[in-house]
Amino acid sequence: MSKKSSGSLSTELDPFISPFRIDGTGKFHLRSHKTDAKGGLDKAEGEKMLDANRKRLADFQEKLFAQDRWSVLVVLQGMDAAGKDSAIKGIFEGVNPQGCEVTSFKQPSTLELNHDFMWRCVIALPKRGHIGIFNRSYYEECLVTRVHPDLLEKEKIPGKLITKDIWRERFDYITAFERYLSRNGTVILKFFLNISKQEQRTRFLDRLEQPGKIWKFSMNDVTERARWDRYQAVYQDIVRHTSSKVAPWHVVPSDHKWFARVVIGSTVVAALDRLELRFPRADKASLEEFAQVRKALQREAKGGRGKKVGTKA
Amino acid sequence: MSKKSSGSLSTELDPFISPFRIDGTGKFHLRSHKTDAKGGLDKAEGEKMLDANRKRLADFQEKLFAQDRWSVLVVLQGMDAAGKDSAIKGIFEGVNPQGCEVTSFKQPSTLELNHDFMWRCVIALPKRGHIGIFNRSYYEECLVTRVHPDLLEKEKIPGKLITKDIWRERFDYITAFERYLSRNGTVILKFFLNISKQEQRTRFLDRLEQPGKIWKFSMNDVTERARWDRYQAVYQDIVRHTSSKVAPWHVVPSDHKWFARVVIGSTVVAALDRLELRFPRADKASLEEFAQVRKALQREAKGGRGKKVGTKA
Repeated sequence: MSKKSSGSLSTELDPFISPFRIDGTGKFHLRSHKTDAKGGLDKAEGEKMLDANRKRLADFQEKLFAQDRWSVLVVLQGMDAAGKDSAIKGIFEGVNPQGCEVTSFKQPSTLELNHDFMWRCVIALPKRGHIGIFNRSYYEECLVTRVHPDLLEKEKIPGKLITKDIWRERFDYITAFERYLSRNGTVILKFFLNISKQEQRTRFLDRLEQPGKIWKFSMNDVTERARWDRYQAVYQDIVRHTSSKVAPWHVVPSDHKWFARVVIGSTVVAALDRLELRFPRADKASLEEFAQVRKALQREAKGGRGKKVGTKA
Repeated sequence: MSKKSSGSLSTELDPFISPFRIDGTGKFHLRSHKTDAKGGLDKAEGEKMLDANRKRLADFQEKLFAQDRWSVLVVLQGMDAAGKDSAIKGIFEGVNPQGCEVTSFKQPSTLELNHDFMWRCVIALPKRGHIGIFNRSYYEECLVTRVHPDLLEKEKIPGKLITKDIWRERFDYITAFERYLSRNGTVILKFFLNISKQEQRTRFLDRLEQPGKIWKFSMNDVTERARWDRYQAVYQDIVRHTSSKVAPWHVVPSDHKWFARVVIGSTVVAALDRLELRFPRADKASLEEFAQVRKALQREAKGGRGKKVGTKA
């Protein structure tokens, strides 16, 4: 399945990508996006796709790593219990960890607060050839910080620089930053895991009732749940102002975890497919030299301690 | 001298700053800028100013550090032997190194080349309360890399992203980046140490003839000297496209090292002066608590092992 040609793979996956992609060209209203869509699939079909995408991803990632030019940045945002952690596990667990790093951004540390708000994310950007996954990201500083203005005070920005324009300024810079990254070879894919308030309630109850899940629950989750509408409004504002062709947002229906994974996995796979990745080819001179080395190694096996590898006869 | 009020200090230093400051509002021609200006001073007067500025700098930096809000980024660029290293020594040697870090950017490492070109500089940005000095900077990637296109290949940017617009794109992003930094509390001061080709020749000969200086000479310096005009043209382009009110360039006459230091030192001092730095004041509640601690400590000295500090009687 991973051997299909570029065109057909992208076409095949497109129904699970383009309905959810926001690239800044149209209007965006979060309310118009369903949280419980399933794209016409049932769960069994979804699982099959997930499986196929995992294989494709592992295959592409090997080439990405070998080619060592492009990198991929996956940004995951969403309310508590939206399924960020489990999406990472479900989608990327087949990928070689040597070329794939996950960074989770929690409450900023003292060191991080001593820098501009992007700094902690910039130092964690994926190297060339790598996939970097941001579990939360610099968008938190346009989100939680906006919902809780006291957190802005903790950023220690000189008071006179904090004006009513601060969020617009952050959006503008993030847009410039993402354009810059893309021009330097980073493919940026941003996902907002969109769940309903009702589904969050179900998942919170689930966490509270199962001994194996209770560690994921925090009292803080409940206080933030009370600010649901405010968060939704700010997410809408973020998607409106920071969606672009080079760094689109994907508003992923996430009430069904398996479908969220189909959408995210398909989006990443299709983006890698478009890069037309190849294993690097050796040049002619190297190939000739390699042929000699190969012969020498073969002789060594037959004749024991023969001539040294790599020296001419 | 460091106790003068803001207004008068800035006025006093202005003749050594504003003639050399480029903030993007006017036209810029590098040829119109003298390399051997002395601002009407003789060397003895210059040394006196240097001394005064060193004291002012140490004083301001202590407050900058204590206040822990603003940071200062000093960017030094210039041809080989323009005097970057000695300027750092001559201007900043009175400053507490705990709040002042110098980062020298040489040929990029493998790790650095595996990231976007700004990355190595971003991770080295000064923390709040600190002065960061960049001895060369991200501008090298618009300069040496432009003069030597083979270095662009080493950056491992995917081929199709390298277009004729690449330098303009870098300028645009740098401008956005510097605006962002300034909005987050970093004061950016950029200096181009402007020497004549004749003065470089003298300094190279000096290095070659003195045993204590010969280690600074590299054969590479001579090959780059042959590209003098190209470098001058690119520097002019950089200053034209990346000067702004929040991140101005200063084209510093540097044939006389002492005068270059007067200009750079005065510019940094005046910028710190404008911040109106203050030691943080304790709030009323803390002051009352501190008064109790003080009494307890005093009792301890008199009565030996008395009551514990900080506990109420």
